[in-house]
Amino acid sequence: MHGAVRELEAEVGRDSLTVPLIAQRAGVTPSTVYRRWGDLQELLSDVAVERLRPEGAPGDHGDFSADLAAWAEQFLDEMASPAGRAYTRDVLLGDPEGGNAGRCSAYAVEQIEVIVTRAADRDEAAPDVETVIDAVVAPMMYRILFRPDGLDAAYARRLVGRLLGPADQ
Amino acid sequence: MHGAVRELEAEVGRDSLTVPLIAQRAGVTPSTVYRRWGDLQELLSDVAVERLRPEGAPGDHGDFSADLAAWAEQFLDEMASPAGRAYTRDVLLGDPEGGNAGRCSAYAVEQIEVIVTRAADRDEAAPDVETVIDAVVAPMMYRILFRPDGLDAAYARRLVGRLLGPADQ
Repeated sequence: MHGAVRELEAEVGRDSLTVPLIAQRAGVTPSTVYRRWGDLQELLSDVAVERLRPEGAPGDHGDFSADLAAWAEQFLDEMASPAGRAYTRDVLLGDPEGGNAGRCSAYAVEQIEVIVTRAADRDEAAPDVETVIDAVVAPMMYRILFRPDGLDAAYARRLVGRLLGPADQ
Repeated sequence: MHGAVRELEAEVGRDSLTVPLIAQRAGVTPSTVYRRWGDLQELLSDVAVERLRPEGAPGDHGDFSADLAAWAEQFLDEMASPAGRAYTRDVLLGDPEGGNAGRCSAYAVEQIEVIVTRAADRDEAAPDVETVIDAVVAPMMYRILFRPDGLDAAYARRLVGRLLGPADQ
């Protein structure tokens, strides 16, 4: 079903997707789709959360500050793109229980855990994961949703700089 | 129209609202509603953003740290409540252009501006408004939407404490 949504999205665009169209492409009846997903928004939320899954571990740039800055910059670039915004919106819209939103947040947590663990392996001091979420991930996601101005690489690096303080710059 | 939505929401619940029902209560035809709002989600987004408008200026507690902590605690309490969550969701859902989301963010900015200006009047040092948004408002709103665990008054105060550092506690 995810494949059918992705194909049709590319062919007819996100706004023209309907359950009958998706069902036809997937070779099932619309009622099969409704039994599993309730409505189109729930299906699109499940597809979007898969699209937002990170493709690999964050890069190793030699120290915690560089690792986190590079990851934050890439995360912002992806999430603030038109596709990233549309998927984030879809995740929230078709997800009244918050399961998919939690999954998105868990993706970021997993990536930051890798960066923090790598810092510990190098005997570097690093803030805990939840602090990084508050100081770096949350401002980027808040601004994407509510206040989308000035979201460039410099902003991502500024958040990391503020978290780590001048000594770590 | 806002009054009709509020009345019906109280009587039949948020999930039973329909455009014909709202139009009937407001004494207009459904097409009048559709001409102005496009669909139910857009109407509910406009109603929700009005509900989230702050009712007055933040309280004066004598210094910047106390003012910001008290405001953050109250903001989190309201926004993380079932009603606050439902309105935030409605704002985002019926607002593809982001105008209502921007309005919500502007409410928080205005409140923080009052607190920061009051600090300046007292000759206190205070971070700028956008830094307070990143460090205090964004983590609360991010967690409400994506990661809603442990959202209590202590969390709000911890964010303010982290922003101001041990010297200001």
